[in-house]
Amino acid sequence: MSKFWSPFVRDLAPYVPGEQPKMANLVKLNTNEHPQGPSPKVLDAIRAEADERLRLYPDPRSTALCEAIADYYRIKPEQVFVGNGSDEVLAHIFMGLFRQSRPLLFPDITYSFYKVYCGLYDIDYQTVPLDQELSIRLADYDAPNGGIIFPNPNAPTGRLLPLADIEALLRRNTESVVVVDEAYIDFGGDSAIALVDRYPNLLVTQTLSKSRSLAGLRIGLAVGDEALIDGLTRIKDSFNSYPLDRLAVAAGKAAFEDDDWFRQGRDLVVEQRGWLTGQLAERGFQTLPSAANFVFTRHPDHRGADLAGGLREQGVIVRHFGKPERIADYLRITIGTAGQNQTLVAALDRLL
Amino acid sequence: MSKFWSPFVRDLAPYVPGEQPKMANLVKLNTNEHPQGPSPKVLDAIRAEADERLRLYPDPRSTALCEAIADYYRIKPEQVFVGNGSDEVLAHIFMGLFRQSRPLLFPDITYSFYKVYCGLYDIDYQTVPLDQELSIRLADYDAPNGGIIFPNPNAPTGRLLPLADIEALLRRNTESVVVVDEAYIDFGGDSAIALVDRYPNLLVTQTLSKSRSLAGLRIGLAVGDEALIDGLTRIKDSFNSYPLDRLAVAAGKAAFEDDDWFRQGRDLVVEQRGWLTGQLAERGFQTLPSAANFVFTRHPDHRGADLAGGLREQGVIVRHFGKPERIADYLRITIGTAGQNQTLVAALDRLL
Repeated sequence: MSKFWSPFVRDLAPYVPGEQPKMANLVKLNTNEHPQGPSPKVLDAIRAEADERLRLYPDPRSTALCEAIADYYRIKPEQVFVGNGSDEVLAHIFMGLFRQSRPLLFPDITYSFYKVYCGLYDIDYQTVPLDQELSIRLADYDAPNGGIIFPNPNAPTGRLLPLADIEALLRRNTESVVVVDEAYIDFGGDSAIALVDRYPNLLVTQTLSKSRSLAGLRIGLAVGDEALIDGLTRIKDSFNSYPLDRLAVAAGKAAFEDDDWFRQGRDLVVEQRGWLTGQLAERGFQTLPSAANFVFTRHPDHRGADLAGGLREQGVIVRHFGKPERIADYLRITIGTAGQNQTLVAALDRLL
Repeated sequence: MSKFWSPFVRDLAPYVPGEQPKMANLVKLNTNEHPQGPSPKVLDAIRAEADERLRLYPDPRSTALCEAIADYYRIKPEQVFVGNGSDEVLAHIFMGLFRQSRPLLFPDITYSFYKVYCGLYDIDYQTVPLDQELSIRLADYDAPNGGIIFPNPNAPTGRLLPLADIEALLRRNTESVVVVDEAYIDFGGDSAIALVDRYPNLLVTQTLSKSRSLAGLRIGLAVGDEALIDGLTRIKDSFNSYPLDRLAVAAGKAAFEDDDWFRQGRDLVVEQRGWLTGQLAERGFQTLPSAANFVFTRHPDHRGADLAGGLREQGVIVRHFGKPERIADYLRITIGTAGQNQTLVAALDRLL
């Protein structure tokens, strides 16, 4: 607390990211990073860009990256917005599109940064409870609102909504912006980017931190109608002219161009997710069906906090949220390499 | 304009950065980039960091970089805040420290992003006119205020304030935050970082884009009392957990560690600034004394717009602001390499 802060700062409840421990030999399954490194072509692109030109500002529009994304999704570059990680993109969305007179709607159990943005930008919101199976039920969003946002698949549950449900929502909800946060979509779902040409109020966000193995670089994107992208660009140009550096633009472009590497990495995660889910089931765990690169699981006879603590003592870090009550006994476990997943299972066996 | 924007977005007047033209063979003297590339040790550090670890999130606190900056300035790492370019750092300062009931004060002719931040965050401000010589006169800031910000040296004038004047202001103005924006300080002034231990309301910002030749990477910093840094961290953690990527942290650290390269590049700019100022004087230009890596100059017989246009036709790009009236005939010219500066002078000779 300081008398020099803007008064609202004392009331902020900042986001708490998953721990980034500096200990060696950890099995780190707590922040949904990809077990496989980025494409060698991405690393080559970074090295090729690391020269004398770094003295010059980057392109403020990151045109080369927007074009690569547009090529990939067969849309126009003007439908693409990029930022310094999808958290920055989301922040601009909350400020630029969700400061409305009616409340924003999002699930009660979801990415916990949404509430933080509402605090930062003084946005009124209402949470909509997940159903008994911890699924989003989009029929529950048929209420007056100033916007709707949900991840698909949802985090931390991993549960996927079919595109048809999202389209049905878009047909009913035409007067406010609907944001589908697809941080994890590549691990098992269909992207709503397929719908942006038909729904001018649909915005889809993605990140290169998960399925493209670039958490260390900070690149996020939004795709939607040009008017929505223009609104975000106005915010960005009032905040930071050059959010993406030269290396990130080159790396992001190379990541979208190496589709083989992307598919191979994704298939590895999907296969390991199947293996791990099976192993957990054999041990009595109840695991939600996951379309993401993590599983959300609990054991009827063990408390979540005890399991997370017991794993930590063995050098295996998973995410345990503790609250709200409904998910207090769940662990969110990132899918690691085959070796990491085996270590996890062996460590669990010592606790059960 | 879109009905889906938050209502305030239509009233924003975003910052317009200096042009980043994509034409080849330009002599680009419009955005104050350094004529010399970054240290080879910086490039090595980037290449060494560009590996499999990019799949992992960076350290949310950028500890290694904060420690290198603290070592360099002999302060504590807890007194350092870093961000994605000093524009992001400034944005967080405006939001986190300058949203007060009294107006923010800054010069009428200065970095034009300050007004933009006020628009973005709904901050009341009052501009304080430069004096007849286009100097900041800090006595004019003795008014009730919710904060004070000015660049030192000022942009686009290049004029420097002595540290003693800044300290005198800090002795008088103890109840609001004073930010000294030192984007250009390394080219000819003393940093107010020397004062932060004595004035808990002083915050000093710097960038690695100018004197450290890393505009292409986006690294900015603020130094001040721990309580001010904590306030900024609360904003950052409510906006984007990981603003600096792994490559930027490694590069920034290496940049502060290679002091020889830094001094050599700075000396080159200072020497060329002297040469160019002399050449301009011989041709009748009136140039403000500059402590920055640019000069602010006008010719009594030629309109600024004509000179800027005539230079552009010859492939030499300088910055011409056009307004306000008092500076309408000035050009802001970045100090380039010896060769670029000679080309500029020869191009001017064709116009005079």
